[in-house]
Amino acid sequence: MRIENDSLGTMAIEDNILYGIQTSRAIDNFPICNSILNQYPSLIQGLAYVKAACAQANNQLGILESHKADAIYASCIDLINGNHHCAFAISMIQGGAGTSTNMNANEVIANLALLKLGHRPGQYHYLHPINDVNLSQSTNDAYPTAIRLGLLIEQPKLLASLTKLVASFKEKAKEFSDIHKVARTQLQDAVPMTLGQEFGGFAATLEDELKLIEQFSKLFHKINLGGTAVGTGINTESNYAELAIESLSQLTNIPFEQTHNLIAASSDMGDFVTYSSALKRLGIKLSKIANDLRLLSMGPRAGISEINLPAKQPGSSIMPGKVNPVIPEVVSQVAYQVAGFDSAICMAAEAGQLQLNAMEPLIAFNLFQSLALLTNTCEVFNKHCISGITANQARCKELFDNSLAMVTALNPFIGYEAASRIAKDAIATGLSVKHLVLKQGLLSEQTLDDVLTPEKLTQPA
Amino acid sequence: MRIENDSLGTMAIEDNILYGIQTSRAIDNFPICNSILNQYPSLIQGLAYVKAACAQANNQLGILESHKADAIYASCIDLINGNHHCAFAISMIQGGAGTSTNMNANEVIANLALLKLGHRPGQYHYLHPINDVNLSQSTNDAYPTAIRLGLLIEQPKLLASLTKLVASFKEKAKEFSDIHKVARTQLQDAVPMTLGQEFGGFAATLEDELKLIEQFSKLFHKINLGGTAVGTGINTESNYAELAIESLSQLTNIPFEQTHNLIAASSDMGDFVTYSSALKRLGIKLSKIANDLRLLSMGPRAGISEINLPAKQPGSSIMPGKVNPVIPEVVSQVAYQVAGFDSAICMAAEAGQLQLNAMEPLIAFNLFQSLALLTNTCEVFNKHCISGITANQARCKELFDNSLAMVTALNPFIGYEAASRIAKDAIATGLSVKHLVLKQGLLSEQTLDDVLTPEKLTQPA
Amino acid sequence: MRIENDSLGTMAIEDNILYGIQTSRAIDNFPICNSILNQYPSLIQGLAYVKAACAQANNQLGILESHKADAIYASCIDLINGNHHCAFAISMIQGGAGTSTNMNANEVIANLALLKLGHRPGQYHYLHPINDVNLSQSTNDAYPTAIRLGLLIEQPKLLASLTKLVASFKEKAKEFSDIHKVARTQLQDAVPMTLGQEFGGFAATLEDELKLIEQFSKLFHKINLGGTAVGTGINTESNYAELAIESLSQLTNIPFEQTHNLIAASSDMGDFVTYSSALKRLGIKLSKIANDLRLLSMGPRAGISEINLPAKQPGSSIMPGKVNPVIPEVVSQVAYQVAGFDSAICMAAEAGQLQLNAMEPLIAFNLFQSLALLTNTCEVFNKHCISGITANQARCKELFDNSLAMVTALNPFIGYEAASRIAKDAIATGLSVKHLVLKQGLLSEQTLDDVLTPEKLTQPA
Amino acid sequence: MRIENDSLGTMAIEDNILYGIQTSRAIDNFPICNSILNQYPSLIQGLAYVKAACAQANNQLGILESHKADAIYASCIDLINGNHHCAFAISMIQGGAGTSTNMNANEVIANLALLKLGHRPGQYHYLHPINDVNLSQSTNDAYPTAIRLGLLIEQPKLLASLTKLVASFKEKAKEFSDIHKVARTQLQDAVPMTLGQEFGGFAATLEDELKLIEQFSKLFHKINLGGTAVGTGINTESNYAELAIESLSQLTNIPFEQTHNLIAASSDMGDFVTYSSALKRLGIKLSKIANDLRLLSMGPRAGISEINLPAKQPGSSIMPGKVNPVIPEVVSQVAYQVAGFDSAICMAAEAGQLQLNAMEPLIAFNLFQSLALLTNTCEVFNKHCISGITANQARCKELFDNSLAMVTALNPFIGYEAASRIAKDAIATGLSVKHLVLKQGLLSEQTLDDVLTPEKLTQPA
Repeated sequence: MRIENDSLGTMAIEDNILYGIQTSRAIDNFPICNSILNQYPSLIQGLAYVKAACAQANNQLGILESHKADAIYASCIDLINGNHHCAFAISMIQGGAGTSTNMNANEVIANLALLKLGHRPGQYHYLHPINDVNLSQSTNDAYPTAIRLGLLIEQPKLLASLTKLVASFKEKAKEFSDIHKVARTQLQDAVPMTLGQEFGGFAATLEDELKLIEQFSKLFHKINLGGTAVGTGINTESNYAELAIESLSQLTNIPFEQTHNLIAASSDMGDFVTYSSALKRLGIKLSKIANDLRLLSMGPRAGISEINLPAKQPGSSIMPGKVNPVIPEVVSQVAYQVAGFDSAICMAAEAGQLQLNAMEPLIAFNLFQSLALLTNTCEVFNKHCISGITANQARCKELFDNSLAMVTALNPFIGYEAASRIAKDAIATGLSVKHLVLKQGLLSEQTLDDVLTPEKLTQPA
Repeated sequence: MRIENDSLGTMAIEDNILYGIQTSRAIDNFPICNSILNQYPSLIQGLAYVKAACAQANNQLGILESHKADAIYASCIDLINGNHHCAFAISMIQGGAGTSTNMNANEVIANLALLKLGHRPGQYHYLHPINDVNLSQSTNDAYPTAIRLGLLIEQPKLLASLTKLVASFKEKAKEFSDIHKVARTQLQDAVPMTLGQEFGGFAATLEDELKLIEQFSKLFHKINLGGTAVGTGINTESNYAELAIESLSQLTNIPFEQTHNLIAASSDMGDFVTYSSALKRLGIKLSKIANDLRLLSMGPRAGISEINLPAKQPGSSIMPGKVNPVIPEVVSQVAYQVAGFDSAICMAAEAGQLQLNAMEPLIAFNLFQSLALLTNTCEVFNKHCISGITANQARCKELFDNSLAMVTALNPFIGYEAASRIAKDAIATGLSVKHLVLKQGLLSEQTLDDVLTPEKLTQPA
Repeated sequence: MRIENDSLGTMAIEDNILYGIQTSRAIDNFPICNSILNQYPSLIQGLAYVKAACAQANNQLGILESHKADAIYASCIDLINGNHHCAFAISMIQGGAGTSTNMNANEVIANLALLKLGHRPGQYHYLHPINDVNLSQSTNDAYPTAIRLGLLIEQPKLLASLTKLVASFKEKAKEFSDIHKVARTQLQDAVPMTLGQEFGGFAATLEDELKLIEQFSKLFHKINLGGTAVGTGINTESNYAELAIESLSQLTNIPFEQTHNLIAASSDMGDFVTYSSALKRLGIKLSKIANDLRLLSMGPRAGISEINLPAKQPGSSIMPGKVNPVIPEVVSQVAYQVAGFDSAICMAAEAGQLQLNAMEPLIAFNLFQSLALLTNTCEVFNKHCISGITANQARCKELFDNSLAMVTALNPFIGYEAASRIAKDAIATGLSVKHLVLKQGLLSEQTLDDVLTPEKLTQPA
Repeated sequence: MRIENDSLGTMAIEDNILYGIQTSRAIDNFPICNSILNQYPSLIQGLAYVKAACAQANNQLGILESHKADAIYASCIDLINGNHHCAFAISMIQGGAGTSTNMNANEVIANLALLKLGHRPGQYHYLHPINDVNLSQSTNDAYPTAIRLGLLIEQPKLLASLTKLVASFKEKAKEFSDIHKVARTQLQDAVPMTLGQEFGGFAATLEDELKLIEQFSKLFHKINLGGTAVGTGINTESNYAELAIESLSQLTNIPFEQTHNLIAASSDMGDFVTYSSALKRLGIKLSKIANDLRLLSMGPRAGISEINLPAKQPGSSIMPGKVNPVIPEVVSQVAYQVAGFDSAICMAAEAGQLQLNAMEPLIAFNLFQSLALLTNTCEVFNKHCISGITANQARCKELFDNSLAMVTALNPFIGYEAASRIAKDAIATGLSVKHLVLKQGLLSEQTLDDVLTPEKLTQPA
């Protein structure tokens, strides 16, 4: 056991533990939830990149000796490579506006650096978590920068799984391009369309999200590094901010730049709100599609049954042979969860007071959760559902032929009111639209056949 | 024009206007929304009852002369009877924790009383809005009491329209009690049920709400009248609170009692949160039912079509003969709106600071809105939709006979695994369950017919 | 009285009424709330622009005679100029995915056009609401286009009032630039800053919103006009969409273009979700600032009292002389309301089914409400609060001099741990930082004075 | 490895694994989040109690042999005792309306029972997960019953930690009962109160929650066990439901009863919505209190500083000696999280379709999360914060003496308007209320001293 101290007193810590006294206090203070920092490797990587970049800047400015800067840098690389994450043992939901998380990083990096320099953990007179690792920084600029970076590190996984999902929908759109069916608005039979158009719409609406999420995430390129405690940059050398941000950009290949007002940035959570909204929007779209797939596969006998979802598991512990749309169901649930996370973020963002928002850890927690949930869900949606969907072409045709979907196409020829009468008669008598139009002598059979060609009906213009 | 003054200065007010300087200031200060106090008669009545009760208590204690108390009382009765509401001209959304609303009531009542006493509006040396009408009160106890009372005045309208809706569902349950159909879980064909059972479920689940809303509203019987500014009861005589609450109970026939801790009650919005949750819960149930009705009436040709909703308006400006489920659609929209109002209430309730919650006006605004929306919606839902629903008995039978819904009933006779095989074969071959069971010699025709009687299938135990 | 008919029957309508049978039905069907279409002039203008543009396109294509097109166009201009809005008498919350609103526009425009052509309202054989005014359109493309356009018409009012608010904050930032004070993080004394920096932060964070809202609103330039019922463009001529969108762009000076997938666009509410998020984000920022102002003006005697808000109304019906921060309070309430509207929009957006989202009217309702609330609130915030704020310079100085805010600046000279000891000693003894540093011989008086110059402390780099 | 099969095929499972093929499929299907069933022991216990009770009922009815019933019962007891929970390896967020969770229980219990009977896992011809363990049940009645029971098992932990928190507040209320201070409404100095009254208010408002949560949880005593698939009770013997519920009540000592309409209960989530609202309400109250504590402890020098929170960790990586209110901060964050969970529950509850709500797993997930978060948070709040709070009596007195809080008490003696003038003069001149009243000859010194006794001011009636 080694003894560490801080401004509140001393504490014994096991020798082989990489974190120090402040992390220990935070572990004691926040037994709140079982979401622990080490389950969020991208956030740890974000912290490590920030610490590495700051060490480089401090060294360039001559206020951090090279052997220290090198040791700090090497320790950060360890963390970026995924090592020693278990030393990040604090609850993601924590008081203190992220100070505990920042100190956890400072302590772990200091102790790793001490080991690299041939010292033992806790010998902070050789290299100090605050005076050296945290030099020129405050939690209030280092932590939000690390969150932004962590999200940017995590985001490509979401975009990759979403890209695959879009591709699957496109493939299905192509596969189903010749299947004519009834389109439905407000759950009522509407006009003709193809099943391919329907799936193409799913692909297109999700494709928008790829661009939008990418676009929104660029808000994170503006960072407040160098603002330190409240944005005045107290305890930083002139040039420091510029150097640190340049280092960070080089290390990460992300074009970071300093935000235009550091005072505002210290307490503002706006960009997190926007990003959460983008994730919520994706969730909403996924859930709407999932619900559509449940509607289209209703059955097998007493529903729509235009498509078949792949059977993934027996659907019931009592009803033999039942198979349920379990994947679309989980997709909708994730969407609701992400919307719930967005609500929490909204409340936390509003709760900033004066020069800081102490609720930042909660915002980070919810954003990382949403990203991970959506990433996994797009993957599952694609793999276990979309890629295996088949069409019931005969059923589509049966419903289409039996429907009044084509009656709208008669408007230009017989007018809306006559067409309405035909529709009403058809519903009342059970007879077909074609039969009634011919019977009432409204159009010749040839014209009618031409107008009602399914191919024309779905691509009229 | 008369000149009025307050601690901030003077203002000219037209002679015939019943409100005074503080109301005028509030009108100027809060051009926020077009929801004005006078659109909320129950809140005005709530204020009037409170002022009347306090005047009686003050008179009993000998601190308000009888001619004043009588004039105040008579003026309150005017307001309770619906007169002079146009003098309540402030935005419902307002700063100041309700002081403007309370002063609006104080001023209008004072001026009405002055007129009754033969004086002119503004001659406050005869009868004063604060010293007399507001005597022994603060906004901080009078206003929340008036809100509680206003909601209690408004609530019977909701319960009445909900009661009628429940009755309609019950009637339909009876009407449809012999119509056998396929029940669906997760939108997949499940087991047999009757359409009457389905509608009986709608009736039953809404009936629960009648009781629960009634029960939750009883939280409003606990009031903080007598607590004045922060709950210490400063500037009240001993006995005052008791007398005022007794008067209020007698005037309204509602068994009010003083809440157990006046300090807590001054800033706490908990009971409003609970009541809003109850309204949200009702909305959620209505929306789920509305969505079910849209699903059951999908069609007319390419959907489920087990029921017909009454046609209320042509459904499309382009698709002839289309009729849409417009009433269930508006029901769901109202549910979302009420859920949104609940979110706003939640944020406002959390924003209390120290001895008061300044966001109370927003909470009142949202609660009254939710109550009105739900009242109107239950009325519309019943009148324009539920009462006119008809069943497509033939369609129900067709889907039922064609389905595998009865296969679950075979479990006790042939086991879950054999029943699963029958179900799979039926789906694959398109053959009926009965045919396959007989063909595989699993049960005799007689047993099978007995087991599969629709009446037995829907009421087995 | 004239008699009108539609596919459901006939109805008598007063001769001088400009709307027709379908609007009448909608008025009967939706007595839901007291937010009526005519309270949303921008939406009516949006509808009129769309109808005018479509008439032009139809005329160019030779499917709408010139005298009809001209009469329709002239009628639309009437509506754009703000006339006849009272003929839009339906509840904003309505079932039917906007069909009633679209038909209200079709009917009013048809009847206005009939009058212009020398006919009487209802003589639809001369010019028909559906066959002529709605020609080549469906509610499902005309209505969402009108909403987008309506929001774009309304938005400049918000941006104008927000711009003024930003300017006020900037002016105050300049006015307060020399006032040194204690910055506070997590409500604890932190480091030095100026009051000007604090107000500059408010200006800067709101300035971001100007850009972002503008940017998000550009999503509305992509419209689905020409998609008609479900996005297949049924009943449109080739070229029609292009012509109609070009007309609309010319009429409005907004660079509209067709969205890339009309099927997707018919049911997708994504852009409304994003725009609502942007409004919510603005609300959150305003509320945070409003809360800061309440904190900074706490007092007058027992709080912070660094600034004075203008006194807008007496603050209490019981506490003499009390003045409350009523404007910041209403700002926060509006923020909660807008967040609640965003929740409603989220639920409505998720509820789309197959080729349409029937909840679009609710989405429109909430967006227009949010826009109006925020516009009014920025106006009020600026006029009644920000522009009249004064600083208590002496109080700022007193708190600053008495604080430990300058101790952070000692880190680079005496190290974090020694500085911590100084801070602890100061708190324990009540002595000043300067006194203790000198007493402990850590720095010379000259160095200390230099380090602790307020100007340096707030702009160190 | 053993081979298991279900209606979709076969799968190899390691011999020592207690779950079977359906659980395996669910693990594959739902790699959604890292919240796994085995982290929710109360839910597993709930499932085990249900299975035990049903086995007893089935045995009593003679449809389950005694050796099977006994083995099932004994296996359930193992689970109730906390053993073998690692065999519950599925994501809490899952599609399928809980079928996977129910089957996980069925399979684990079957295999444990097989072992007890001397067989090997997977030898289901001796004792079958569905035909025996799930006998007379459906997921649709067993699963929601298990959730209700699980929450009832978990709830006492919350109530216990909340009870301790209330007790701490009460203790502080007593400890601080003689400390007079300024009460604040809308963050402005209001009237006198004691610090004890303030803390007594915190205790009282939380005490209400103890009762209300208890009361709301009684809604869970109404269960739908016996309804099986959709509430018709298909595949149950008459008497079964009664026997099963009686068994469950005896095993758990909870007075369960059958809900009044099983059809409604199968799809309704209303009671979960209500319970979530109750948890949200508690969160809101906790957050408001936490924020008050942050306000009261603002400082140490430039704020209110009426109380000291215990120092739990150094507050800053840059500002020496800073200590932050980290515990109240985490309390507010948890409140926002719980509110977010409530939003997710609301959306999931609304998404029920026809005879079931497939989103039930999400609802369970969020409720168990909220319960656990609040339980931990009350514990932490009490232990790390409330119990260690001390008062700054001198500071309270200084602010009080310097304030105008006593001016309200003059109303009954000199009238509201004169009192307002005194207040305004005091603010303008900086002189004390007493000084000004005497100077203006409004009251004698003796009367004034009597009226302004702090004890009288805080307990006037």
